[in-house]
This record gives sequence, structure tokens and C-alpha cells, in this order.
Amino acid sequence: MALPSHLPWPWGSQRARIAFAISNALEVSLPECESLPGVMPRGPLPQTLSVQSLDMHITENKQAHNTSMYKNSSLIVRRNKEFLIDILFDRPFDETQDTVQLEFMIGSVPDENKGTYITVSFGSVKTESSWRGRLLEKQGNSIRVGITPDVQSIIGRFSTFAVVVNETGKRRTEKNSATDFYVLFNPWDPSDQVYMPNEAERQEYVMNDVGTIYNGEINDISFRSWNYGQFEEGVLDACLFILDSGKMPLMYRGNATEVARQASALMNSIDDNGVLAGNWTGDYSSGTAPTAWTGSAEILLKYASKGGAPVCFAQCWVFAGTLNTFFRALGIPARVITNYCSAHDNGGNIKANIMLNPDGSVNRKKTRDSIWNYHCWNEVFMKRFDLPDQYSGWQVADCTPQETSDGLYRCGPTSVKCIKEGDLSYSFDSRFVFAEVNSDVVFHQFDKYGNSKIVHVDTTYVGQLIVTKRPNTNGYIDITLNYKYPKGSAEDKRVMQLAERRGIPKRKYSPLPDAGVQIDIKAETIKIGENFTLTMNIKNQTSQTSTVSLTVTGCAMYYTGLTSSTFKLENYSSTVDAWQTTPVTMKVQAAEYMSFLVEQSNLLFVVHGQVNETGKSVSAMRVINLRPPELMMKVTGVPQVGRDLMVSVSFQNPYNFTLKNVQLRLDGAGLTPTKVKSYDQVAPGGSVQYTDTITPYSPGRKVLIGCLDCIPLSQITNQLEINVVN
Amino acid sequence: MALPSHLPWPWGSQRARIAFAISNALEVSLPECESLPGVMPRGPLPQTLSVQSLDMHITENKQAHNTSMYKNSSLIVRRNKEFLIDILFDRPFDETQDTVQLEFMIGSVPDENKGTYITVSFGSVKTESSWRGRLLEKQGNSIRVGITPDVQSIIGRFSTFAVVVNETGKRRTEKNSATDFYVLFNPWDPSDQVYMPNEAERQEYVMNDVGTIYNGEINDISFRSWNYGQFEEGVLDACLFILDSGKMPLMYRGNATEVARQASALMNSIDDNGVLAGNWTGDYSSGTAPTAWTGSAEILLKYASKGGAPVCFAQCWVFAGTLNTFFRALGIPARVITNYCSAHDNGGNIKANIMLNPDGSVNRKKTRDSIWNYHCWNEVFMKRFDLPDQYSGWQVADCTPQETSDGLYRCGPTSVKCIKEGDLSYSFDSRFVFAEVNSDVVFHQFDKYGNSKIVHVDTTYVGQLIVTKRPNTNGYIDITLNYKYPKGSAEDKRVMQLAERRGIPKRKYSPLPDAGVQIDIKAETIKIGENFTLTMNIKNQTSQTSTVSLTVTGCAMYYTGLTSSTFKLENYSSTVDAWQTTPVTMKVQAAEYMSFLVEQSNLLFVVHGQVNETGKSVSAMRVINLRPPELMMKVTGVPQVGRDLMVSVSFQNPYNFTLKNVQLRLDGAGLTPTKVKSYDQVAPGGSVQYTDTITPYSPGRKVLIGCLDCIPLSQITNQLEINVVN
Repeated sequence: MALPSHLPWPWGSQRARIAFAISNALEVSLPECESLPGVMPRGPLPQTLSVQSLDMHITENKQAHNTSMYKNSSLIVRRNKEFLIDILFDRPFDETQDTVQLEFMIGSVPDENKGTYITVSFGSVKTESSWRGRLLEKQGNSIRVGITPDVQSIIGRFSTFAVVVNETGKRRTEKNSATDFYVLFNPWDPSDQVYMPNEAERQEYVMNDVGTIYNGEINDISFRSWNYGQFEEGVLDACLFILDSGKMPLMYRGNATEVARQASALMNSIDDNGVLAGNWTGDYSSGTAPTAWTGSAEILLKYASKGGAPVCFAQCWVFAGTLNTFFRALGIPARVITNYCSAHDNGGNIKANIMLNPDGSVNRKKTRDSIWNYHCWNEVFMKRFDLPDQYSGWQVADCTPQETSDGLYRCGPTSVKCIKEGDLSYSFDSRFVFAEVNSDVVFHQFDKYGNSKIVHVDTTYVGQLIVTKRPNTNGYIDITLNYKYPKGSAEDKRVMQLAERRGIPKRKYSPLPDAGVQIDIKAETIKIGENFTLTMNIKNQTSQTSTVSLTVTGCAMYYTGLTSSTFKLENYSSTVDAWQTTPVTMKVQAAEYMSFLVEQSNLLFVVHGQVNETGKSVSAMRVINLRPPELMMKVTGVPQVGRDLMVSVSFQNPYNFTLKNVQLRLDGAGLTPTKVKSYDQVAPGGSVQYTDTITPYSPGRKVLIGCLDCIPLSQITNQLEINVVN
Repeated sequence: MALPSHLPWPWGSQRARIAFAISNALEVSLPECESLPGVMPRGPLPQTLSVQSLDMHITENKQAHNTSMYKNSSLIVRRNKEFLIDILFDRPFDETQDTVQLEFMIGSVPDENKGTYITVSFGSVKTESSWRGRLLEKQGNSIRVGITPDVQSIIGRFSTFAVVVNETGKRRTEKNSATDFYVLFNPWDPSDQVYMPNEAERQEYVMNDVGTIYNGEINDISFRSWNYGQFEEGVLDACLFILDSGKMPLMYRGNATEVARQASALMNSIDDNGVLAGNWTGDYSSGTAPTAWTGSAEILLKYASKGGAPVCFAQCWVFAGTLNTFFRALGIPARVITNYCSAHDNGGNIKANIMLNPDGSVNRKKTRDSIWNYHCWNEVFMKRFDLPDQYSGWQVADCTPQETSDGLYRCGPTSVKCIKEGDLSYSFDSRFVFAEVNSDVVFHQFDKYGNSKIVHVDTTYVGQLIVTKRPNTNGYIDITLNYKYPKGSAEDKRVMQLAERRGIPKRKYSPLPDAGVQIDIKAETIKIGENFTLTMNIKNQTSQTSTVSLTVTGCAMYYTGLTSSTFKLENYSSTVDAWQTTPVTMKVQAAEYMSFLVEQSNLLFVVHGQVNETGKSVSAMRVINLRPPELMMKVTGVPQVGRDLMVSVSFQNPYNFTLKNVQLRLDGAGLTPTKVKSYDQVAPGGSVQYTDTITPYSPGRKVLIGCLDCIPLSQITNQLEINVVN
């Protein structure tokens, strides 16, 4: 018998290692005719039955699969739910004699064992397949079949081929992109990994294409609307492109846990040329300022259209908003949450250390930990096949690049329940998330020899409040209790003990002398540019008169808790009678802080001092988030699909300085693609008036989002709800 | 009070994010004089005591810390063990009046809270510190102090400064690299994370700088000596350079789990420009063939001297050997293990699928999984602070880039005990390692319509034997039972059930008809270039006479299990009486296989057939590892430190073809730096005779390693034990 020749491997050079599919975009081309194994082709194959066309029933199938709202001309189905295909032959199909197979394929290395090649047979020759097929109806030369993708099927874009099989060979239809279709996760199916039982929740966490992201600071919560836009034209393809560009093997794309893990890495540009470049420098002149974006669709489409070049720039809410779109587009229930205040655990020791000079002022050089005013991340809802059952449900995924996540720029998915229970040995990155919501703030003070000692520990400042948008309405829900038991409860103590046995460093502080005096800092809601008064209420809880010396440091602060510069440093002294409270007030002039303001306009006040009679220390800190001026928005006309609406957005510069490089963005899923308008400058007292026409293209409750951004003003946003009729 | 000016952050641009130290190499420069906080300097500080010099007691300290054997002129100490420093002043030190501090610093951002800045005080002013200090002795103008690095101290190179403190300021000694020292992990200390109680094991797993790596195939185990060389000049610095070049934050470098995780990523070049570039293509002309290396020191020194350019090329034993050196150099107990046979779980389903054509031959195009003859990885010994207690001990770390390790090219550390117990939810990558030792080999056969069905399942082929070098002697120990319970035992069933609840896919096979006939393939040890006979013993375990039709496929195979080409395909038929065994023999001529051989010279024979009477399938496969010709090595002279020895290495080409581009390597820790000699060609029957002089530089039992490499011959190695006296 002749030996086969020395053939190279089909995928190129002779390799000693396996290749496999890492791209949904690349496709294999299959021959039109194939002789059966062992049968040598001898001219054209005899052929008695021939496929004329396939009808994918796009409209009906999409309706049944909750995918009609995708602006995408192809069929989109969800796993483990039957969809219909009509096969038209040149003569009636005889299932006792004829065999037709539907082949579904994804990627360039179709392999039955990897789920990238599926064959479903109808007729006389039976095959086993992970996808189910039923012959539903015969009518004339046509049959109608029902196909049910496996509940663990890969997510992505599949090609369809029809193959007529007979004794000597196979004849395959030509590649036709009109019969391509997408398979998505199925939160409606009880067997799917991402099943979510509650319909109202599915409507919010999968189907809502607009949302609210909370920001500001804990005593003065603000928000902005965000256009998720997961159904906008091109967005689903852009999401699949992200997985391709990150070379995620196709065979793992059916596992929501793996998809979430990879996405948390791929949404930031570090390591892997991912979607968004993070930037916290204050200089965004080479891209779009993080505060200027209004939604994800613009970002995702830009990333895909530039072939995978990172989009500039993002901070946490932009990362979380865009990742949220990615999840919802693929059918994984997801939401954006905000944690007030969030520790960036730079030392792995769940302590944020604030270093004070001997005079009580903040030693900015030695203070290396930070407490973010707020931090946004995502939660995704799924069964964790890899963990004990009780840890399924909401999982944290965080794509904002934070240095300490297992040495790489990604985080999660980690079970929210694991965080709550302190059961931190489980994948992925639970220790990091635990620290974000449970760190202590520790104040150290240097003595004159340069030695520091702990003077105050605040165990409640971090993770005080965790919120997310309430489903199907405005306002937030407080989900703090999903992450932690009430501080000081028996459960809280049990959790901290388990967390320590799972590798969280023990936190032991020598008992600190209780000064018996507390300071409470009060402030009203203040607009950027206003003078204001800071009130420090000194509460004497002892039976002695106490004289308190205070140093107040005022700094401009980023939302990440890092201070950029100190603009105020004052000393006060006040004598407070036993059991009394005395206010100390400090006037702050706009002229003092305006030139120091940084994006998001936060001021940090740290108060430190001592009780003269006892020498004991007192400390307090407070962030004030200054409010920007208002953006006015108005719509005139009847909101109806296909009918023009007049939109006008206006803004007046209330300051005595010129605003430069002002960017105005208008956005709204189903209403308009993102519109960007730039103004070189807006003079003191001058105004901007932008008027444009939009044409809604999708019915229902829509949100039109406006955002104005420049230095030093950011987060000037507004939104209008518009009910679009069909 | 004047406001501080608008100062930038000390580390450059005004950032809203925290910077921190990621390099041991970069250092901060500190001022010689520092006024105390709040005290403005007014000319030179008054100074009544002055430090003249520091004596690090390098020789005595190294002896006490088990670090004398490092060829490194600096002090090297281990954590949580005291070392001595003498401080010489200009006058006697008065501990009731004077204060002197020793400052230990690593990296460019010294921070007490991150363990990168440590101050230990002696005298009148006390400080708290994580490192302990004792004033041991005063003599004349000198004091002797004992310093004990914290048991969780960062590993790396520290600078030392002495600071005299008085009421107005500090005076610091100048930077002096002679007082730099290294801190390493301490396997001798019961409180250290890497404590190993048994001295004989410490001598092997930390102190032995030469070892044996097992290879070949399970029925014919081979080995090669490997020069770990962790004490060679420059190797410790190269290992720290790897962490710097991988930007591993200093503050995590005290945690052996984190160090192992990062090292498993940094030892391969993918993602991060790590140490070694993997190559399995067969073309190594742009670097050194993986089979040609003799040890790690050459590789690590090359990587460091080229400033972090990946060294070309490696396969698994080179990766594992080099990572082993890294661990031992830093003081983490480590060993190289070999798994026969090792599944590369390309589908995450712990099945390796072998696809057969209808005629029984292997369908190479459709077979995408691979079973490696053997695979080497590392085990490291440590307490896992992050896991439940029972999962401390040996941990798997694998730096060979395998595509499926959590989407990134690294693997581990994962507890060997977790693998054994099937408790696979714990970090890191336990599922992948579980598959390497527990996968099933599943034979699928296509019918003539192109549909496949399972015809044979082998649940015992993978992970049959796991070995590592026996401590302090030659030969291996079988550690298979560390990884798994005996196949089929009650414990084995319990483990598989738990593994499935932890995310391993369920493996269900429809019951396969038992053919009642078994095939056992036998072969002797065969040298490359010999003709041989393959014997297939057909064992009929039924009460009927059975006629068996067999197809035998013979392929050249890489050690990764991938076949490069089929060189033999034959059919046989044999009739075997009830309860009898009949041999079928196949002659294989050297001329048939020689031109197809690939590196490591493996042949794979797959036998598939059926029992004619019943139509039932029979299958078997066998790898044959052909032995290379011998390398002769001889040493003349008395092995003594500093005295010349004559070494001669010789090789004769036994073949009728010319060997081209022959590379000969000679290596031996403590004996000689790596020597490489190249020969353009060696004629048929011709020989190579290499003679050189080496001068041993370290006493004790040493191993001289020789290795000859060319295409198509590889793994031609030999070793000589040499006992070097002082």
C-alpha cells in the first residue's frame, strides 16, 4: 500500500503544538462537493436532491428570541430555544430516503469536539449532535425544521450550510452571509448559565439600553445618564470584535464566567490593546476627556472601526458603562454599581494610610494610599459552575485598570456572596474587591524625629453605601447589604475572622485613647464659584471643659482621593463646655479655590488637632463636591419613529473667565447617533445655544443625554425622557 | 500663615493615581542632612556623634544564614533570622543620650507602610518597626547590633544607611553599595511561609544546584542532568531583574504565592517579554535548540545581560529547569516533576479526542487534542495564606506557555492537594492541572457519511506516572499518589464527583461493547537507525475463536504528541483461538522512518481494527522513544578547588549521512561556566573529540554535563559526577 506523502499540517508550518480558533471573524472555506471517506471522487457526484434556498425566518425568530431590537439585519437567537429554518429543495423531500444536514460553523478551525462545528441531520441518516433538530413540517418542495442550539453553545456569529448526503458524497450550499446568525446567552431559559428568573429584572439588566450611573460623594450623591446602546447598529459586532482582538479562544465563549473574566481584561488598553485607555492625569488633549462621554456605543464603534486601536480616554464610570454594554449585548445580565467610598488597596493590607505632619496637616508626599470618593464597577448575573452553588448570582467584574489585581489589569468575576461571607479563596480577585468595601482608614502622625504612630482609625468610612439604578424606574437601590453585614454585628465579626483565615492581613491596632471630643464637618450644597462656610461642630462628650486646637487643611481633590494641591491651611482654637457642642466656622472664598480646581470639582478638608487639657488627638475629614452650572435641554415636536424632532441645548458661562475648548455631546439610544459640537471659547457671561434635528428610529421610553465639558468644568450633564411612539 | 505653593507630586507629573515601586533596581537618593519636621534648617546641623563605618560581617552572617555558596560579594540573609552589623562612631555611643537609626530601603518609593522602608532605632529615641533590632555589645567607639528582618519581609536587595538623630535633625551616611544586602525566603524558619521541616529535603530543594529531569516515555524513562546553578555569579541578580522587568510591585515580593504566580508568567516570553521564548516548530536556527541547553545559569545570565530580551528557545524542561533555579535562588523550595503522559486540555473538557478514519487510520487533520509523552512542571513548597490550611504544601507552577491557562500564559500556583481532592474552585488554574493528569483519551471513528462515534475510551493512559528526582541521591521517586487516588478506588470516585461539582464537565460515555479482545504492543529499547520488530500480542479473552483485522499507523511524533508525518500504514489479519494470545509482528526498517524523524526521536504506533465475527472495535497505541548514540566523557586530574582538570568529550557519527551544524555544550555548577563548541559537520563514521581545561571553583559533589545537538539528533547527553575537594 502506498504511504501518504509527507504532508504539512493544514494550518501552515509543521508545528508540534496545536492551533485552535481564536477569531469569530476568520472563516474556513469548505468544498462544495466532498466524497465520502474511502470513496475516491470519479467526476461529478450523482445528485438527485438539491437545496434551492434557506429561509431563516428572521423577523419571527427574532421576536420569539427577544432580539428584535438589535439594529442588525441578521438573525439573532438565544441558546436552548428553538428557531425555525425553511429548506427549499428542487423536489419534495422524502425523509425515508433522503438526508439533509444543516451545518453550523464558527471560526476558522471547525471542530465538533470544540463546539465550533455542529451538524444536525434530517432524514434517513442519523447523527448525534449537541444541537437538537426537529423536522416540523413538509409542504411542497420545502421542509420546515426547528433547531435548538445547545444550552452551553458558543456565543457569536455562525455560518449556515445545507448539505445533501447520499451514498457516494455530500453536496454543500455555497457560503451565504444572509444565512449567518448570532447565538447569544439566554437569560430567559432556566437551564442557561445566565438565567434570571424575574422578568422586570431581565428588562432592566439585559434589555434596557439606557441607565444611570451614580457619582458625586456620599453626602451629596449625583448621577449622570448613560447611553448603553447595546442594540445600536454595529455594537454587537464590535463586542465580538473585542473578543477576537483579544484572541479569546472560541471554545470558551460559551462560558459566561470566562467571557466576563476576559472582558474585564479586554475593556482596558493595558496589556492587550483593549478598548479604552485609562487616564487620570488631567491632560486629555490628545483624546476625549473621560467626563465628556455620554455613552458606550460611540466608544465601541470607534474601537471596531479603527481596527482595535484603544479609544482615549476613560475613568471608572466610562469603563463600567462600556463593559455593561458589552455584557447586555451578549445577553449576560449586568449593571453598573457605585461604591462610596472605595479604597484602592495599594498595599494588599486593607488599610488606607493617611500620613499627617506633626502640625496635623496632611503629608502629601508620604500618603500613598487613596480613598476614591466613589468607584464604579459592574455586576454580572450567572451560575458559577466552578464554585460551590451558594456563590452563583451577582458577580463583580471591574475593568478599570487598578494596579493590584493579581498583577494584571483586570478583576473578577468574583461572587458578591463571597465578599459578604469573607470566603476569599475563590476565583477571581475576591481579596481586592473585599478591600475596596472593607478597608480601614488609618491616620498616622509623624513626631518630630520622623517616627509615625497611629492616631485615629476609621473603620466605617469605606464602603458605606453601594448603589445601583433601580430596575424599570429612576432612583437607586441601596445594595450595601449584598456586600457586607452591618458593621459591628456578630455576622460582621464572623466574616472578618474567616477573611483573615483566607489571607486578609490581621488588623490590630493598639487601643487608642478616646479624646471624648468629636468633630463633625457640615456644608451645604455649593456651586462651583460660590463662597461658602465650612462648619466644624466640636462635640465635647466629657464632663470637663475642653479646649481644642485644630488645623484645617483644604485641598483640591480628584475623585480618586488624590489631592492635587493645598489651597487653605488654617488653625483654630475653641473652648467647649462639658457635654456641649460648639461650632467653629471657616470662610472659604471662591478666589481661594477656583484656580486649583481639578475635574469633578472636589474639595477635601482634613481637620486634625488635639485637646489641650489631655493631649489627646481628634481627626475628621470631609469631601465637598461642588456643583456645576446647569445645562438646559428642550425638545419640540411629537416624538414618533421616523419623524423629526427639534432639540435645543443651551448653556451660560456664569464665571468671570473665558471657557476654552468646550465640547458638547448629544446622545440617545434609539434617538440619534452621538453628535459632538465644539466651541473654541465661551466668554464670561456668554452662552452657547445648540439646535439640531433628530429622527427617532426606535419606539418606547428613550433618554436624550446632553453633556458639556471643558477645563475646568466637567460633568455638566442633563437628560430628557422622551416617549417615542411607533 | 502662608499657603504652600502649588507643588507637583514628587514622582513627576501631577497624577490623580498612586505610583508605587515596581523595581528593585531603581533607588531613591536621600539627603545627607534632614531637619526635623517643623524645624527650618539654619546652616549646618549641630553634630556631636558621627558614624565612621558599618561592618556587615558578610562571611559570618552568610554562614549562619545558609547563603555562603552564593558567588556574590554582598551580604545575603534570610527572613526572621538575626544578622549582625557593627557601627563604628567617632566616640563611644551613649545609649541614654544618643540615638542611631539603621535605615533599610528597597526601590525608589520607600514607604514604611509598604515594607520598602524600615527604620530600626538604638539609643534614647525609640521607634516601632517591623524588623527587630537589639544592641548586643559596645566596645570602644563601636557597637554591635542584631537585626532580624520581618518574617514577611520583601525579598530583594536592600540599601543600608546609618542615621544619627538629635533634637534638631538627622545626619545620614552616604549611599555605599558595600553595605547593600539581599533578603531571601527562609525555609529553615518555622514561621516563614516557605518553611520546610526536613533538612535533607531543604538540602535538595533549596541547596542542590544540579538535578535530574526525567523525559522519554512511560515505558522507557530517560533522563538528563540539569545545571540549576542558582549560586553562580550573577544568577541571583538575574532573578531579581526578572521581577523588575515584569514590573512586579515590590510590596508583593514577600509573598511566595504571588512570587510563584508572577514567575510562572514571567519565565515565558509571551505577554510580557519574559525570559524564554517557546518554540515547537522544529526550526531553531535563529537561536539555541531547546534540546541543546544544559542548564539555567547560561539562560538567566543571557536574559539579564541583554536587558530583558527573551532567550531563544525553550520547551517544557527548559522552562521548568529555569523556573526551578529562580525559586531556589530566592529560597523557595522547588523541584521539577515529570508527568507521563500529560494531556494538553485544548477544549477544557478533560477529554483528548483521537479521530480515526473509517479504515482505522488516524485522521490527523481532525485530531486537535494532544497527549504529551511527558510534560515537566515545577512544584514549590509553601504555606497558602489564601487557602484553607489543608491546601498548603507542594504547589504546581507551570511556566510553559499552554494556551488554556485562564486565557494567559501562566499557570499556578495550585495546591497539589486540591488536584488530588478534586477541590478545584481554589486559585490558581487547578482545573487545567487536573486535566493534565486526569483526562480520558477518547477514540472517535468516522463512518462513511462523515459522522463520528466513540469507539474506545482509555481512562488510564494520562497521568499514569508522575516522578521527580529523589532527594540527595540519584533515581526518581514516584509521586503519582500526591496527585490522585488509585484509579477506580472509592476515593477516586468521590474526587471525580466533587471535581464535577467544581466545574469539570461531566464525562458520560454510552456503554461500549467489550470486544473481549485486547491488543498489547511490545517493543525493545531501540537505537536511532536500527531496524526493529513491533509485536502486537492479540489476547482473545472470549470462549470463541476470533479473527481480528488490524490497521497499524506509524507516525513520527513530537514529545507533545503531535505527529509530523505518517511513514507506515499496514493491514493485518489474525485468527486467535478462545482464551489464547497470538502475536502479530511488523518489521520496521530504519530506511522507512529515518527521513521522517523529528526531535527527541519518537515514533507513534496506533493500532485499530475489529473482530470480524462480532464487528466490535479494538484499539491500542504505543510510543517508542528511539535512543540516540552515546556521548563519551572523561576527566583526568585531581578535582580540587582552583586546580586545573582536563576534560575530554567525544562522539562518533554512526550513520551513513553527514551531521551538520553540530553544537556541543559542556556545563557544571561550581566547575565551569557553560562552554559551547560548534562543528559545521561530522562525516559518516567521523568523530568529534573536544578537549578543554576547567578549574573547579566550589567544593563538594559536582556534576559535569555534556550535550550534543544537531538535526536530526537531539538529547545526546551524558554526565560525570566529580567530588571536588577544597
